[in-house]
Amino acid sequence: MPPVITLTTDFGLADHYVASMKGVLIAGAPDATIVDVTHLIPRHQVLAGSFVLERAIATFPPGTVHVAVVDPGVGSSRRILIVKIRSQTVVCPDNGLITWAWQRHGPAAAYELTWRPAAFSQTFHGRDIMSPAAAMLVNRTPISGIAHPIAEPILLPVAPATGGEGSVIYIDHYGNCTTNLPASSISAGTMVHAAGADLGRLKRTYADVGIGEPLALIGSSDLLEIAVREGSAAARFGLRVGDPVTASL
Amino acid sequence: MPPVITLTTDFGLADHYVASMKGVLIAGAPDATIVDVTHLIPRHQVLAGSFVLERAIATFPPGTVHVAVVDPGVGSSRRILIVKIRSQTVVCPDNGLITWAWQRHGPAAAYELTWRPAAFSQTFHGRDIMSPAAAMLVNRTPISGIAHPIAEPILLPVAPATGGEGSVIYIDHYGNCTTNLPASSISAGTMVHAAGADLGRLKRTYADVGIGEPLALIGSSDLLEIAVREGSAAARFGLRVGDPVTASL
Amino acid sequence: MPPVITLTTDFGLADHYVASMKGVLIAGAPDATIVDVTHLIPRHQVLAGSFVLERAIATFPPGTVHVAVVDPGVGSSRRILIVKIRSQTVVCPDNGLITWAWQRHGPAAAYELTWRPAAFSQTFHGRDIMSPAAAMLVNRTPISGIAHPIAEPILLPVAPATGGEGSVIYIDHYGNCTTNLPASSISAGTMVHAAGADLGRLKRTYADVGIGEPLALIGSSDLLEIAVREGSAAARFGLRVGDPVTASL
Repeated sequence: MPPVITLTTDFGLADHYVASMKGVLIAGAPDATIVDVTHLIPRHQVLAGSFVLERAIATFPPGTVHVAVVDPGVGSSRRILIVKIRSQTVVCPDNGLITWAWQRHGPAAAYELTWRPAAFSQTFHGRDIMSPAAAMLVNRTPISGIAHPIAEPILLPVAPATGGEGSVIYIDHYGNCTTNLPASSISAGTMVHAAGADLGRLKRTYADVGIGEPLALIGSSDLLEIAVREGSAAARFGLRVGDPVTASL
Repeated sequence: MPPVITLTTDFGLADHYVASMKGVLIAGAPDATIVDVTHLIPRHQVLAGSFVLERAIATFPPGTVHVAVVDPGVGSSRRILIVKIRSQTVVCPDNGLITWAWQRHGPAAAYELTWRPAAFSQTFHGRDIMSPAAAMLVNRTPISGIAHPIAEPILLPVAPATGGEGSVIYIDHYGNCTTNLPASSISAGTMVHAAGADLGRLKRTYADVGIGEPLALIGSSDLLEIAVREGSAAARFGLRVGDPVTASL
Repeated sequence: MPPVITLTTDFGLADHYVASMKGVLIAGAPDATIVDVTHLIPRHQVLAGSFVLERAIATFPPGTVHVAVVDPGVGSSRRILIVKIRSQTVVCPDNGLITWAWQRHGPAAAYELTWRPAAFSQTFHGRDIMSPAAAMLVNRTPISGIAHPIAEPILLPVAPATGGEGSVIYIDHYGNCTTNLPASSISAGTMVHAAGADLGRLKRTYADVGIGEPLALIGSSDLLEIAVREGSAAARFGLRVGDPVTASL
């Protein structure tokens, strides 16, 4: 099986930044398959990047190396992490980006990447430090040669909800609002309320309601999701990340 | 030649949905080359997806497996298709998405995918059913083991025009308006009229008119196309999918 | 090392155009790794395409074949180029698209592609001529068999600045404004002025100023860049490509 490297960034798709990383990755790990997760994380929104990164970790096979760069602190003293999690490896800045994966699949083994190239820019560590490090990991460079263990990465104050009291943690481009309420905590028949919205009883799929009608369901992330069939729940209810959501029998 | 899988969806590029499909495809068919056709089909616009899918089928080599997911009926009882067409294989919902390929390259052999994984979501069959099925097809699983033949898929009421009376079937992001009038039905010297627009005689290429001027020509899809050089024909003439277009000597 | 082909175009991501090129490339060079640089060059903006193409050439390994298509003159008599530069090969229209790479890494060897397929469209030479030519180059077809040497390609009037008097040549999607002033011409302590903006002394990285504050720094392209930390310098100062920038001690 060829090695796989995924990329999750807020670099956008209009410029050369993503390709610059790929040029470095291909030079360093020519056999690797490189997969774009997304480059449209809203600029500097670490929590959104954290959610999407967890989704990549949940789907990719063991051995995958994930490079995630939402990095407003580039050039400052923020650390760069290597995290071994779910038989996969993540390279990312230590700014909370690992949070949601850590909360759902961890705790895991975290390291600070101490390796640096002879010369590197102060504005593009994704290209100059994280991509070469990812190529080294694909080439089976031992982590101990380029990093040292740390106790715990920086984590954002977000975790799976317990007791039916949660909040919106991610809004996708359709306007579907994913919460931090895990499927395992939700029973059939649960009533769902969000800020300003009564979603009624949990449904099974979008087609259980009419077009344009709201619903709550277990989404493809195995989390409670608030949606409008063929519409936008975020727009309909003015929902934003952080808004409270309650599930109760 | 490594196997090739293409993806055509309305999932957008901002979220993790496309990557989730790729994670499943890579795990199941690690040697396959995965190619994005587009993920920006306007949400739930099956006809637009159908046109773009045909364009992929027209260009990719024999043996390619195309996965197309514009699937407003996910979670309902709509069928999932496997279609053998032009020595290639398509996996898609049975909602009309195969229409334009069927009309231009078919009729073809159609099957209903009856295989289902042990567990799957009700909201993301692209990841949970269609991607594993595509990986199985790449791995030479016989269709008869996972599907059964059907007479004909659901087809939208769109077909190549005859007699010079056609309509706009696809508008690209430049505003070029492609019609269902095949090149083979258009003679040099043909006069072209669209709703509210007199395009004059058929031209050969954009550079045959001045910048900002409208024209009709045979586009790269071998269909009659209405364009404005370095501009948008859709915006200039208010053209929409379905608007009538006439070609006459 | 597998061969690498990169793509830089203004085709957008919504339609099938990029995939059509990839279908041809995969059929002709099935072992090649195809990498998207970007397809969001603003329509027909040759200078922007030229800058991004140079960035790809700067990062990819020797042997890479770059196909760049920003081609308002498709179907006219404009030439198609093959350029050997920095141990890499570029295929692109002869309309100035090679300019910035030529200025930074050249002069180089330029050829006019004279090969044409038996049949080809008048509107999509990227698919019908440039992609098959790129596949031939990957397959080690000698350039002399498909092209003949030319003295010099068409170059836009843009070059690295000397004497501290330069201009904005590229604005990225963040609003960072890259100039044609090379790092090698800029000393620490340099004062930077742009049209309507006093940037003060050269900084090292974004984190050297407060959030929302402007700065000038050497960007990841090794050129002087004008930025606003976590903001848009283009929006703040109304900067546009071509605006003058001065660096002085």
